[in-house]
Amino acid sequence: MTQPRVIIIGAGFGGLYAARTLADKPVDVLLIDRKNFHTFTPLLYQVATCGLDPSEIAYPVRHIFYDRPNIRFLMGEVAAIDHLRKTVSVRTSGTTQEEHYDYLIVAAGSVTNFFGNQTVARAAFVLKDLSDAVILRNHILRLFEKAAWVEDAAEKQALTTMVVVGGGPTGLETAGALFELYNYVLRQEYRHTQDMVAHVILVEASDRLLAPFPEKLQQEALRQLTSLGVEVVLDNSVQEAGEHFIRLHDGREIATHTIVWAAGVKASPLADRIGVELQRGGRVPVGETLEVIGREHIYVVGDMAYLTNPHGMPYPQMIPVAKQQGMHAAQNILRQLSGQPQTAFQYRDRGIMATIGRSRAVAWIFNRFTFTGYLAWIMWLSLHLLWLLGFRNRVSVLVGWVWNYFTFDRSVRIILEHRELEPVREPPLADQV
Amino acid sequence: MTQPRVIIIGAGFGGLYAARTLADKPVDVLLIDRKNFHTFTPLLYQVATCGLDPSEIAYPVRHIFYDRPNIRFLMGEVAAIDHLRKTVSVRTSGTTQEEHYDYLIVAAGSVTNFFGNQTVARAAFVLKDLSDAVILRNHILRLFEKAAWVEDAAEKQALTTMVVVGGGPTGLETAGALFELYNYVLRQEYRHTQDMVAHVILVEASDRLLAPFPEKLQQEALRQLTSLGVEVVLDNSVQEAGEHFIRLHDGREIATHTIVWAAGVKASPLADRIGVELQRGGRVPVGETLEVIGREHIYVVGDMAYLTNPHGMPYPQMIPVAKQQGMHAAQNILRQLSGQPQTAFQYRDRGIMATIGRSRAVAWIFNRFTFTGYLAWIMWLSLHLLWLLGFRNRVSVLVGWVWNYFTFDRSVRIILEHRELEPVREPPLADQV
Repeated sequence: MTQPRVIIIGAGFGGLYAARTLADKPVDVLLIDRKNFHTFTPLLYQVATCGLDPSEIAYPVRHIFYDRPNIRFLMGEVAAIDHLRKTVSVRTSGTTQEEHYDYLIVAAGSVTNFFGNQTVARAAFVLKDLSDAVILRNHILRLFEKAAWVEDAAEKQALTTMVVVGGGPTGLETAGALFELYNYVLRQEYRHTQDMVAHVILVEASDRLLAPFPEKLQQEALRQLTSLGVEVVLDNSVQEAGEHFIRLHDGREIATHTIVWAAGVKASPLADRIGVELQRGGRVPVGETLEVIGREHIYVVGDMAYLTNPHGMPYPQMIPVAKQQGMHAAQNILRQLSGQPQTAFQYRDRGIMATIGRSRAVAWIFNRFTFTGYLAWIMWLSLHLLWLLGFRNRVSVLVGWVWNYFTFDRSVRIILEHRELEPVREPPLADQV
Repeated sequence: MTQPRVIIIGAGFGGLYAARTLADKPVDVLLIDRKNFHTFTPLLYQVATCGLDPSEIAYPVRHIFYDRPNIRFLMGEVAAIDHLRKTVSVRTSGTTQEEHYDYLIVAAGSVTNFFGNQTVARAAFVLKDLSDAVILRNHILRLFEKAAWVEDAAEKQALTTMVVVGGGPTGLETAGALFELYNYVLRQEYRHTQDMVAHVILVEASDRLLAPFPEKLQQEALRQLTSLGVEVVLDNSVQEAGEHFIRLHDGREIATHTIVWAAGVKASPLADRIGVELQRGGRVPVGETLEVIGREHIYVVGDMAYLTNPHGMPYPQMIPVAKQQGMHAAQNILRQLSGQPQTAFQYRDRGIMATIGRSRAVAWIFNRFTFTGYLAWIMWLSLHLLWLLGFRNRVSVLVGWVWNYFTFDRSVRIILEHRELEPVREPPLADQV
């Protein structure tokens, strides 16, 4: 007798925890992702700022489940979902293959939201996946090499000015880490050009940083960022951006070659394939069992799902929500299979935290306790190491962090370019052999 | 009074050791390289086979010399050398800048030599720099993902067959490491497809592996490779290659998607810019002081240089030769500046070694002592860790190696693609925000 088949789309936090919940259970699981690895996204900014190696925050999906025989993996991109025939079409290298499901969990996450501003969409760097981080790293290092040899003072300043848009945790972490990279590490190595001073500017549209945190911590985060050396611009949004400038709503124009957009996300375009009317931010409306409203046996979890909490607010697009929803959807499928009623999703909020740089952080735990500075930073470090558990990489991350702390060093400063799409060519001197 | 200016082209082993020799000496040094890092090339094959992270064998040039104020670094590509005006033209991002030298050390290394076979040049992968290694790694991992879902047995075998051409140390190391990656690591993670068996075939045109080693070690290397599971084809060369096949000289055709060409190098095309008649393999003839014959104040070292040893044979294109020549050229410049006569280059040959895989290696030390198997492998490991000295990365390399040894694991199995040349695009659902 064949077992019921569960397809999970996406190996991010939602999909991964759904798959873990279904491991060794009486179901056949097919996990689909465009990449062959899971990315520990909270540390993407450390890859972008030369603190960690890409592979230290990426873990091959096949390895995670190599001893779980009921979980198979398919690398490919989902092109279509047919809820009537209960199939998913997956584009793999060169072909499209169709896979049947009895239950479907869609956990394809979110993409950057430029809120329709095409000039920003063209000019800005983002930090959504591992490639983004490496691209930003290469860009920054290349600009510094250029700035070291440029004579014109204005151009030099533009090359070493970096604007981060968005006052959420990603924006703060990126701004802080960039400032530290510039001013502690790179300046050591560009001694011949002591006129090179890096500027990091954080732009936030509202009047405060870290919107969901209590006001005390919002102000502490602002103080810590400013004391580090980051310029914080509040109550101001981006009007237009180009390759070499950004213009804010109040007319201020900043000459810069680097804009990092961390100001918002929206659901993955895959939401459209489910065929129901979408909610704000392109999110898929789900019931409290996490099943899509009007689509039996299809669950949507994480950043893609739209579900309101008991206070009538949609759950935030955060990793803990995705993890817990992934587990819950999987459990509801198991409940159905064993003839039990499904249960309603309830979020267990353990708190939120953000780090700003060396010894600088804020944390709000169980919505009650506030921590700031060194203590909050140590909590942030320990928790992120714990969460990396299961990753073999935590050892090397820890070694790297301890090293960086005592030496102010950042080891991964290599500009690694791939020319994968170009054919390997015989160099021009072939006839001289 | 300004100091004499030495330009060094290339931050490989030759250029790096030349710069080290000139550090803190009464000269201004400008070190030029296309990349911002030095690559520890002997371990490239470990990056290609998922054993090490790219940054573990790459070290930022600026960091190496950050406390040596007389050494500056310029990232760019040398487009021209004018020996009459004593200038070098360097293409950097968007501009060309001209730099004056009093002494020039050219250490631009070598490129792959396909010996005029255009079909191989188009189809083959190489292992000359860090990008090559990452490209090969991505390719292999992608083929395995594909092979896991292919039904046709012949196509499945072609996807998991890999041909390495060249019986030198690089060929042996790559063939051995690929076999281990396939058969110890990847097969664990493709349990649903136990019919997937990897084939690694090593092709060498002559009748023996490791040409410069004594015959006893050549035979031992052959025995070790074969006992591991690699098929070794001697006395046979490549006639033609395509994306999905390779045809040998004796007519044998092998269906494969992966050809790694490690069968030869020739001098960097930059040799052409020096304007003297080149020797075999495009190498620049130098005198025993390492100055180019007919070009005063221009030194060429390493793979680019053509100099015969006391037995009338050209020095091999190996790292120890490049290192020693780099140091010697730098010392000869210092001798000239202090009014002393230049001295002749003498190579101190300490031996050669090659590793074939876990506990498998051969070593020939001081041209007298032979070592094989586990002992040779431990020597190889220890020496390569020692040589990485100065790299902070040796700690993480050691941790990784010890881990891999006891677990048979390879941690860096991520397919990391950059889409750097594509603009960041708004996804198709922009109107739904």
